[in-house]
Amino acid sequence: MTKVEIDELIKRVAVKAALETEGEPEPGLTSEINWPVNATINRGLEGAISNTTKIGYVNGAKGWLIYRGLNCFDLAEKSSFEETTYLLLYGHLPSRAELQGFNDKLIAYRILPDAVLDVLKAMPKTSHPMSLLATAVSALGSLDDEADDISVTNETEIAIKLTARMASIAGAISRLRRNKEPVNPDPDLTHAANFLYMMTGTKPDEASERIMDASLILHADHGMNASTFTTMVVNSSLSDMYSSVVAGIGSLKGSLHGGANEAALYILEEIGSPENVKPWFEKARAEKRKVMGFGHRVYKAYDPRARILGPIAELVAQKNSESQKLYNIAIALEKEVIEVLGAEKKIFPNVDFYSGLIYNAMSIQTVMFTPIFAVSRIAGWTARALEYLEDNRLFRPRAVYTGPIKAEYTPIQDR
Amino acid sequence: MTKVEIDELIKRVAVKAALETEGEPEPGLTSEINWPVNATINRGLEGAISNTTKIGYVNGAKGWLIYRGLNCFDLAEKSSFEETTYLLLYGHLPSRAELQGFNDKLIAYRILPDAVLDVLKAMPKTSHPMSLLATAVSALGSLDDEADDISVTNETEIAIKLTARMASIAGAISRLRRNKEPVNPDPDLTHAANFLYMMTGTKPDEASERIMDASLILHADHGMNASTFTTMVVNSSLSDMYSSVVAGIGSLKGSLHGGANEAALYILEEIGSPENVKPWFEKARAEKRKVMGFGHRVYKAYDPRARILGPIAELVAQKNSESQKLYNIAIALEKEVIEVLGAEKKIFPNVDFYSGLIYNAMSIQTVMFTPIFAVSRIAGWTARALEYLEDNRLFRPRAVYTGPIKAEYTPIQDR
Repeated sequence: MTKVEIDELIKRVAVKAALETEGEPEPGLTSEINWPVNATINRGLEGAISNTTKIGYVNGAKGWLIYRGLNCFDLAEKSSFEETTYLLLYGHLPSRAELQGFNDKLIAYRILPDAVLDVLKAMPKTSHPMSLLATAVSALGSLDDEADDISVTNETEIAIKLTARMASIAGAISRLRRNKEPVNPDPDLTHAANFLYMMTGTKPDEASERIMDASLILHADHGMNASTFTTMVVNSSLSDMYSSVVAGIGSLKGSLHGGANEAALYILEEIGSPENVKPWFEKARAEKRKVMGFGHRVYKAYDPRARILGPIAELVAQKNSESQKLYNIAIALEKEVIEVLGAEKKIFPNVDFYSGLIYNAMSIQTVMFTPIFAVSRIAGWTARALEYLEDNRLFRPRAVYTGPIKAEYTPIQDR
Repeated sequence: MTKVEIDELIKRVAVKAALETEGEPEPGLTSEINWPVNATINRGLEGAISNTTKIGYVNGAKGWLIYRGLNCFDLAEKSSFEETTYLLLYGHLPSRAELQGFNDKLIAYRILPDAVLDVLKAMPKTSHPMSLLATAVSALGSLDDEADDISVTNETEIAIKLTARMASIAGAISRLRRNKEPVNPDPDLTHAANFLYMMTGTKPDEASERIMDASLILHADHGMNASTFTTMVVNSSLSDMYSSVVAGIGSLKGSLHGGANEAALYILEEIGSPENVKPWFEKARAEKRKVMGFGHRVYKAYDPRARILGPIAELVAQKNSESQKLYNIAIALEKEVIEVLGAEKKIFPNVDFYSGLIYNAMSIQTVMFTPIFAVSRIAGWTARALEYLEDNRLFRPRAVYTGPIKAEYTPIQDR
C-alpha cells in the first residue's frame, strides 16, 4: 500500500461521491436538515423548552425559588446543606436514619486522594481557582476506576462523592493560594463548617458556620442556569458524572454566570466610597457598562436569595470597618440603581450582590467566591443530570447555515 | 455576632419573605417564567435553532458535508488538516504565506509543558483516555497565564495551541498506556504524521500519514453535534477557551457521541466471523440492542464521510489477516443491516463504522479512537465557539416544572 495508491483511491471516490450527491439545496432556509422557511432562530435558546423537571422551580415574576416543592425561605431557616442536597437528589426530606447515612458518606468522601493534591501543587498558585477546580475534579475522574459505570446507582454515588470533595478541593486551592499546606478534613464538623475550616485552617465560629450553611442552601439549585444546563448536556451523551461536572465548572467560571459575585465586589471596591456612587454610576451608564450584581435573566421581582442574604450582609458588615464601608457603598449603589432604573426596568440587586459582601466580611479571598458557588451548586448539577438521564435524549439543537454551498477549491499556487 | 443572632435574623427575614411573596402560580404550565399554556417541550432540544453559522453545513437528506462552502470530498482529496483547520477558523483558504505562518505556530505549540506530562504520569495507566485528555487540557489551562484573556485574538491563539497540543497529549496518553515514555514532537513532520509518530514512537509511512490526514479532515467539523454545542455553551458564559474545550471533550467521551467508533469495533469483534453476522443481528434486533456504527440523527442518506473512509478501510484491511477478517465481518453486517432495515428506515453505515476499521488496521489501540476524534474536532469546536462569541448570548433554555409548589417542611423529628 503506497501513498500514490491512497491518493488515487481518495481522488476516485471523492469524484464519484461528488457526482452522486450533486444537486441543489432545498428552497428556503438551509441547514442540517430541511427547515420550514419560517423557522425562528432563538439565540441562546431563549424560550426553548428542553425538558420537564420535579427538582426545582424558579418563578421570576413572583420571586420564588422552590426545591422539590419547598420554598428556599423555609430551607434557609430550617434545613442544612446536607439535608437540602439529599432533598434535591432523592426527592424527599430524609428520615433521621437516611440523613445520618448520607452524612456518614459525605464525611468519608471528604478525604482527597493524594494524587489530586499533587496535581494542584504542580500548578501555579496564580492559576484561576475555577480552572484548578476543574483540573482537580477531572483528575478525580481519571483516578476513579468506577467512573465509567454510568448506572443511576453509581452516578448518584459519584454525585455524593463530588459534593463532599468539591469543598475539600476548594479548601485546598484556597490554602495553596496563600502558600499554606492544605489541611485534612475534620470528620466532627458539618459540611459548611468543614469547608470553612479547610479554606482557612481555623475552625469557624458557629455564626460563620450558620451563614455559610444558609448561603450553600440558597445556591444549591436554580432552574436551568448555564452550568446546570451544561452538566446535563454532557451527561446526555452518556459520558460520566465527573466529565459532566467538570463541564459545569467550566461554564460557572464565566463572568456571565458564576463570576458575577466576584465582579460585583470588584465594582464596590472600585467605587471606593458612598459619595462616589452617583458619579460612578452616571459614568457607567454613559459607557453602557454592565453593573454586576443587579438584574437577572429570570427574576423580574426581588431575587428571593437576596431577601435572605441582604440582611445577613448588613449584620456581618459590622464585623470590621472595611466591611462596613463596602456595605455602605453597596447600599448607596442599590438606592441609586433602583432610583434611576428600578421603577421602569425592574432591576434589583441579585444574589451575587450580597453573597460577595458576606464572603468578604468573612475574610474569604474574592477569587474564591465562584468556587464556593460550585461547592453548593454541585447539588443541583448532579440532581438534574441524574433526573434527565431517566428519559435521556442527547441535546442537539441546530444552526442555520448562512454561508456559501458550492465554493470552488482553489489550488494553493493560485491563491 | 452570635449563632443565635443569625438564627433569629434568618427566621425573621424568611418569614417576612414568605409572606411578601405569597400567592398562586400563574395558570397553565408553570416554570421559570410565565409560559404560554400551549408551550411545547422538545426533549434534547430537537428542532430548536440557536444560531446561524457560516462555518459548516450538513445536509442530511442529500448526504452533504460542507466546510465554509467547500465540500468534504474536495477537501479530503486536495487539502491537509492544517489547511482545513485554517479554513474553518478564518473562513478562507490560506495563501502560501498564511499557511506557512499557521504551520509554524502549530509546530511550535506541539511541545507540551512538563507539568502536563507529570499530571498524565500521576494518573493510572488504565484511566479512560478521554478523561486523561480532559484532565491534561484543563491542566494546560491552569498553566497558561493568558488563559483568561478572552479577546477573540487570544482565544484564536489558544485554539491554535490546543489544535497542536491535543495531538501531543493524545500521543502521550497512547504511549503511557503501553508503558512507554512519551516522545517529543518532530518539527519536520506534518500534523498527521507527527500525531502518528507521537502515538506509536515510529515515524509513519507516507500512506498511513495520508490516511490519517484524510480522516482528520473528514472529522474536523460536523454541524451542531453534541460536543461542538457543549463547547459553545461553556464559551457563551464568557468562560475561557480551555474550559470550553475540556467540556467538549467530556461530551465527546459519551457513547452516544464520540464513543461510537470504539463501540462499533467492539461489536465487530464480538460477532467474530462473517458467518455469525446473521444470527448475531437477529438476536440484537430481538433484544432491541442498538447496533453502533449504523444510522445517524442527521443523515438520512449515505454518510458522506463513509463514502471516502469506506473504500480506504477496504484497502487497508489488506494489511493483515486480522484486519481483513474484521473488514469481512463489517461488510457482511452492512449487507445484512441494509437488507433488513435499509430500504424502509434509511439506515446506512456511518463514519464511525469505517474509521474504527481503519485505525484498527493501523494498529492503533481501540481506546484511542475517541481521542483521535478530539484531535480532529478541536478545529470545529474552537471555530464555532469563536464565531458564536461575535454576537454572544448565554445559552439558557428552560424546563417546565411538574413538581409540587407548596410543600410543607416537616421537622426531622416528625419524619
